[in-house]
Amino acid sequence: MSASDSRPIGVFDSGIGGLTVLKELALQFPEENFLYLGDTARLPYGSKSPQTIRKYSEQNIQFLEKQNVKAIVIACNTASTQVPEHEFAGLPIYNVIDPGAQRALELSAERRIGVLGTRATINSQAYTAKIKELDPKAEVFDQACPLFVPLAEEGWDSDPVTNLIVYRYLTPLLQNHVDTLILGCTHYPILKNSVARVTGSSIELVDSGEAIAKWLDKDFKQGRLHKNTSGETRQIQILTTDHSAHFTEVAHRILKPVKADGFKVVDL
Amino acid sequence: MSASDSRPIGVFDSGIGGLTVLKELALQFPEENFLYLGDTARLPYGSKSPQTIRKYSEQNIQFLEKQNVKAIVIACNTASTQVPEHEFAGLPIYNVIDPGAQRALELSAERRIGVLGTRATINSQAYTAKIKELDPKAEVFDQACPLFVPLAEEGWDSDPVTNLIVYRYLTPLLQNHVDTLILGCTHYPILKNSVARVTGSSIELVDSGEAIAKWLDKDFKQGRLHKNTSGETRQIQILTTDHSAHFTEVAHRILKPVKADGFKVVDL
Repeated sequence: MSASDSRPIGVFDSGIGGLTVLKELALQFPEENFLYLGDTARLPYGSKSPQTIRKYSEQNIQFLEKQNVKAIVIACNTASTQVPEHEFAGLPIYNVIDPGAQRALELSAERRIGVLGTRATINSQAYTAKIKELDPKAEVFDQACPLFVPLAEEGWDSDPVTNLIVYRYLTPLLQNHVDTLILGCTHYPILKNSVARVTGSSIELVDSGEAIAKWLDKDFKQGRLHKNTSGETRQIQILTTDHSAHFTEVAHRILKPVKADGFKVVDL
Repeated sequence: MSASDSRPIGVFDSGIGGLTVLKELALQFPEENFLYLGDTARLPYGSKSPQTIRKYSEQNIQFLEKQNVKAIVIACNTASTQVPEHEFAGLPIYNVIDPGAQRALELSAERRIGVLGTRATINSQAYTAKIKELDPKAEVFDQACPLFVPLAEEGWDSDPVTNLIVYRYLTPLLQNHVDTLILGCTHYPILKNSVARVTGSSIELVDSGEAIAKWLDKDFKQGRLHKNTSGETRQIQILTTDHSAHFTEVAHRILKPVKADGFKVVDL
C-alpha cells in the first residue's frame, strides 16, 4: 500500500466557475483536502490575451505550490489553454482540456463534436487541436458564448432569458448535427438545465469536473498521486484575491451539498 | 485671452465603456487632443471591491499624469465612486457621478430618479448620496444590471434578447414611476435604443458623456482649463493594458464618426 499524503489538492480558476470542478472532485474524493484559489480581483480571464492569461496562471500555480499542495487542477478552460505543462516543480498539473477532449471522443458516436467556451478559449482552438490529435477524423464545431459567464454569475439558470440566449448560441452547432457538446468553461455547468432544454436528450454534454475527476482517479490508482488516509475530517479552504459578499453567496449555492470550511482573501 | 494648452485630456475606463464618453468629448471639443486609457487587462471593475477599484484607479491616474495630460476624466462610473478628489498633483480630475447627478436633477420634474449601474456602483450608493446632497427631497430608485456590460461588449444592441433583459431590470423602476433615468455606467449608452424602447419618451435618460462635457465646457469658460489653440490637427490616442482585436473592432464601432489616430498596448 502506498504512503498517505494529506496535503490538499490545489484547484484554481479566475472566479466562481471552477467551483463546479471543486464540487465534483470533493464529491468524488471525500477523504481529500482541497485548497481553492479564485483570482477574483483579475476575473474574467475569458476576454484577456494569451500572454496575460499565461502570466496570471503562472502566478496562481506558484502561489499554490508555496501552500504545499500535492497537485494542481486548473479548473478554468481559458487558463488551461495557456498551460500545456503537466508538471511544475515536481507537482502534477491537470488542465481541463485533455480530459474534456478525451471524454467527448468516448461519448461521440458520430464524431461530430461541439465546443462552447469563452472568446479566449475558442480563439485558442485548444479543444479542436486536442480532439484532432486524438482522432483526426473527428469534426469539431465551436462557438464562443460571452454571455454565459455573466448569466451564471447573475444566477439566472433555468430562466427563460437564459434559454433564449442558449438557443441563439447553440443554433449553428445544432444545424451541424453535433452529437456531443463540450461545456468548455467551468461556469457552464451552472447553466446545464438551460443547455439540456435546448439540446434535448440526444446530445451528450461533457462537463470539465466529471472529466477531470476520472483522470485524478486513474492517477490515484496508478500511484502518481497518493490518497489521504489520515482518517481526519477533510478540509476545504477557499481563497480569493478580492473581497466579495456576492462570491461567498454564489459559492455556497454552487458547492451544495459540499460545504466549504473557510473563506479568506489573499494577495498573490 | 488665456494661453493655449495643447496637452491632451486624459480619459480612462476599465475597458470600452469610456469610449462613449470619449466620443462625446471629442465631438464637443474638436480642437482638443485626447489620450484614452482602457485598463482592459483588469476589466471589469464593476464586480470588484472598493479597495481594489481605488487601487487600480490611482494607478491609472498616476500613469496619465506621467503622460503629461492637462486634465483627467474618469470615464467609468465604478471608478468614479472611489475617487472623490477633484484634483491630483495640480491636475483637474472629473468623475462622472457629480455631473450625472446634477443633470438628472435639472431634468426631473417629479424628483423621482432611477439609477442603473454595475453591482459595485449601486452598492456604493454614490449617486443616491450625491442626489440627496443636492436635493434632500428627491427620491432615488436604483438597480444593478450586471448583464448590460457583456451585452454591450457582445454588440447585441437593439436586439430582442437585450430588450427582454432591459425590460426585466427596468420593471421595478417603472413601477416606482421614475421620470428620469441615469445610465450610471459608461457602457450603457451603447444599449440606449433598447433602454428607450422600454422607457418610452416620457422618461429622460442621462448619459455620462453628455453630462461631463457640460462640466468641461464650464471650466474652459471659467479658465480652470485652457483650450488648445495651436491650430494643428488634433490627435486621439488609445492605450490599453492588454492586446485585443475585439477591443479595436468594438472601439471603431462605438467612436463612429470620431476616428482614433492610434492604438497601443502599455504596461502600467
